[in-house]
Amino acid sequence: MKKEAIAMLEERGVTLRDLAELAYELQNPYIPITVDIALENVHKVLDKREVQNAILTGIAIDKLAEKDLIEEPLSSILKRDDSLYGIDEILALSITNIYGSIGFTNFGYLDKVKPGVIGRVNDSKGSQVNTFLDDLLAGIVAAACSRMAHSLGDSNKN
Amino acid sequence: MKKEAIAMLEERGVTLRDLAELAYELQNPYIPITVDIALENVHKVLDKREVQNAILTGIAIDKLAEKDLIEEPLSSILKRDDSLYGIDEILALSITNIYGSIGFTNFGYLDKVKPGVIGRVNDSKGSQVNTFLDDLLAGIVAAACSRMAHSLGDSNKN
Amino acid sequence: MKKEAIAMLEERGVTLRDLAELAYELQNPYIPITVDIALENVHKVLDKREVQNAILTGIAIDKLAEKDLIEEPLSSILKRDDSLYGIDEILALSITNIYGSIGFTNFGYLDKVKPGVIGRVNDSKGSQVNTFLDDLLAGIVAAACSRMAHSLGDSNKN
Amino acid sequence: MKKEAIAMLEERGVTLRDLAELAYELQNPYIPITVDIALENVHKVLDKREVQNAILTGIAIDKLAEKDLIEEPLSSILKRDDSLYGIDEILALSITNIYGSIGFTNFGYLDKVKPGVIGRVNDSKGSQVNTFLDDLLAGIVAAACSRMAHSLGDSNKN
Repeated sequence: MKKEAIAMLEERGVTLRDLAELAYELQNPYIPITVDIALENVHKVLDKREVQNAILTGIAIDKLAEKDLIEEPLSSILKRDDSLYGIDEILALSITNIYGSIGFTNFGYLDKVKPGVIGRVNDSKGSQVNTFLDDLLAGIVAAACSRMAHSLGDSNKN
Repeated sequence: MKKEAIAMLEERGVTLRDLAELAYELQNPYIPITVDIALENVHKVLDKREVQNAILTGIAIDKLAEKDLIEEPLSSILKRDDSLYGIDEILALSITNIYGSIGFTNFGYLDKVKPGVIGRVNDSKGSQVNTFLDDLLAGIVAAACSRMAHSLGDSNKN
Repeated sequence: MKKEAIAMLEERGVTLRDLAELAYELQNPYIPITVDIALENVHKVLDKREVQNAILTGIAIDKLAEKDLIEEPLSSILKRDDSLYGIDEILALSITNIYGSIGFTNFGYLDKVKPGVIGRVNDSKGSQVNTFLDDLLAGIVAAACSRMAHSLGDSNKN
Repeated sequence: MKKEAIAMLEERGVTLRDLAELAYELQNPYIPITVDIALENVHKVLDKREVQNAILTGIAIDKLAEKDLIEEPLSSILKRDDSLYGIDEILALSITNIYGSIGFTNFGYLDKVKPGVIGRVNDSKGSQVNTFLDDLLAGIVAAACSRMAHSLGDSNKN
């Protein structure tokens, strides 16, 4: 199932290296890491079944909305990424959660500032429905940061 | 949107009175209530946009799985209500959460024991995909119990 | 820190074997396990820093309340285990969360039914303040069940 | 209890107006509000019992750590605001949660960027233990933002 999750991300224009670069940028000021270490940690996050389930479910909903297979009023809510929807954040936080609460801060920051691939995915709304995708990416990157902080013994809290 | 959420529940065989009866049974030993008071509280829970979004999304996924519109491997996971899936619990807990953490206990209890309409919905799996529905019902009933406990000043913790 | 967490649990009258027995009883109907396998999984749960932090913090609050070192109105809330308090459930759920959302159901069930050591700890309220302790125990046992379900490939959802 | 929660915040150097100003700055680009509307919403957040409980508990722990009344190893963890502790974020998120998941983004952003009074409280570490306080403030402000977004029909998601 990990393979399927990665394939779905790539189909939507996202590589694991994109995510590793974001995780590297966030944690690099605090712990000595490289993009390759970050990539390894993104892989470890994707090994978790709960993470795979969140990715498969979120992207499935995005794609079904895109193909007009979802009934109203949910269809319109998804297509315009209604700011009061909230279910996308819930799914993404279930990813971040797995490495404990220290990931919430990075998740929120990423979801607000939308750096790198998260911003790219967010901007391509219009042609694509990416209501869940951008939050999922923030969740994966935040989880990878938490994992590195836990295993390397320090983190970006100041 | 509340109207749509109620209509979707009814389409899946669930009335608000079914839910009120469960909430009544759970809280009746601790606070002086009636089924009508419980029903009023179920209505208040359904007034919340976050609750409506969770219901619309969860039931939409159940129906799309039923119609074979979801790709593998997610389709099979949903159809057999895989015990390690977990996204159904996450959505349902976002309902319970709204009235604070005291609802977690009732949610878990309802989801394990599956009394009344929750058991009925769970048993009708086979003909219907109700992977999300049974958890959503547990979430709504637990939220209604929390709401009554908060407003009537006591609860079922012993 | 794991050692300190275990010592604190024992000081409050709880052994890891007590917890393993509960986890065994909950998962035994669904997956082939022994009490020793359950004990091993309880140990793995206690290896997690987030779990250690929740245990140290929750029991510290219980003990400080017992020694009358907490100011009012919080002191009375803790001493009577006010059913609307909720912070004890929040701390406990952060333990369960680590192995994903499938643990919520078992947590709620344990917290409501209070079997074995959880009931014992709850009953000894009066002499001891165990406001956080009983929820923490439910959280640890539910986490151990989730861990076994994930590693042995099935769970108690039906 | 609301009065006690406000008094505890003021004792630690935080006024509700400080929090209202932050909420105003975050939501002002998206919805037409004033600082007074934000202040009214901060008050509504503090009306909730779960919020009061989180504030009373978090600040109590900070103060007990300050007075050296907490045992090791937790005492040192709290005094140095260990980045891997995580229980402070958990408590704060229980505040944000009450107005649904749309608040997670603002919570994380505030906790990372630490604007206004949150930064001030964070900087005064050394003389004071504010391990829980800064997260609680981020939680309250994020909740007030969610409340305004829900009641005024739009939010800061872009």
